[in-house]
Amino acid sequence: MTTSYESQNCTLARALELIGERWTLLIIRDAFYGVQRFNQFRDHLDIPRAMLVERLATLVDNGVLDRRADPDHAARYLYQLTPLGIDLWPALHALLAWGAQVAGPNQLRFVHVRCGHEIDSRGHCQTCGVMPPPTDIATEPRAKARGSARTDSVALALRERHTLLEPLNADE
Amino acid sequence: MTTSYESQNCTLARALELIGERWTLLIIRDAFYGVQRFNQFRDHLDIPRAMLVERLATLVDNGVLDRRADPDHAARYLYQLTPLGIDLWPALHALLAWGAQVAGPNQLRFVHVRCGHEIDSRGHCQTCGVMPPPTDIATEPRAKARGSARTDSVALALRERHTLLEPLNADE
Repeated sequence: MTTSYESQNCTLARALELIGERWTLLIIRDAFYGVQRFNQFRDHLDIPRAMLVERLATLVDNGVLDRRADPDHAARYLYQLTPLGIDLWPALHALLAWGAQVAGPNQLRFVHVRCGHEIDSRGHCQTCGVMPPPTDIATEPRAKARGSARTDSVALALRERHTLLEPLNADE
Repeated sequence: MTTSYESQNCTLARALELIGERWTLLIIRDAFYGVQRFNQFRDHLDIPRAMLVERLATLVDNGVLDRRADPDHAARYLYQLTPLGIDLWPALHALLAWGAQVAGPNQLRFVHVRCGHEIDSRGHCQTCGVMPPPTDIATEPRAKARGSARTDSVALALRERHTLLEPLNADE
């Protein structure tokens, strides 16, 4: 099957080789939210441990995530998006926005840190007339979503406004 | 597994429910290229027949593709993107652009029909200062790619400039 994708000679096929799997994109989403620890990914995604191990290793191998020793926990690691991974923001945000057309508004909204206004479906801040990079974007829960059913540490931490890519201080 | 995705309460998870599969996104890409017939999808994607049948049916069920009788072939169908499907263009183009960072320039380039200039990685035409909709974008092969190895009817038809979403006149 891999051979078939490769014969597609298309950068979309290549992108999907690296990230074209549902869990993988949800892991990348969580990395934008500031999740860095294995246990946080596992608890927030309800992903089987072995699958998470494999997906994280693949993302590190492909240069999308960086892995370094966790200074607070011996023999554990912290995962962070590389510059290549951060460049996935436009694609990830466009998919989030499209999903909102199908499923209704996302539980979290994305606001431009500088002005506090929500960015539009194309990733623009219409107030400031710019397309903010993820480091200038924060998540905050929509009013209706404050009673979200999820109670894992990541979901709880995301009930407060949080700038993308900043480590999420979620207890494990 | 579906249950786990659903508990994600996130529009990305919902988007990936509908289109988060590699073949599916390549089918959608080909639909933007103007591919409408089953045999063209099959020949251009090298996708197993049963898988293509299933993926097309799912896309029709989910409102991403429309299916209608093929006036030229009894008992065959034509597939076209619905407005919901067409709204995937920003996400699809962002993934194509990201893949180009990893794999080098795409074999096809996307140009703004009005001015003939290539659109940038964010989908902008910098010459005209607009973000053209797919109906105002054409594909054309990069000079180096003219000798592409693929010789299926779709690959041959795409050696000429072709406006997105217009039916591709590729022999079957």
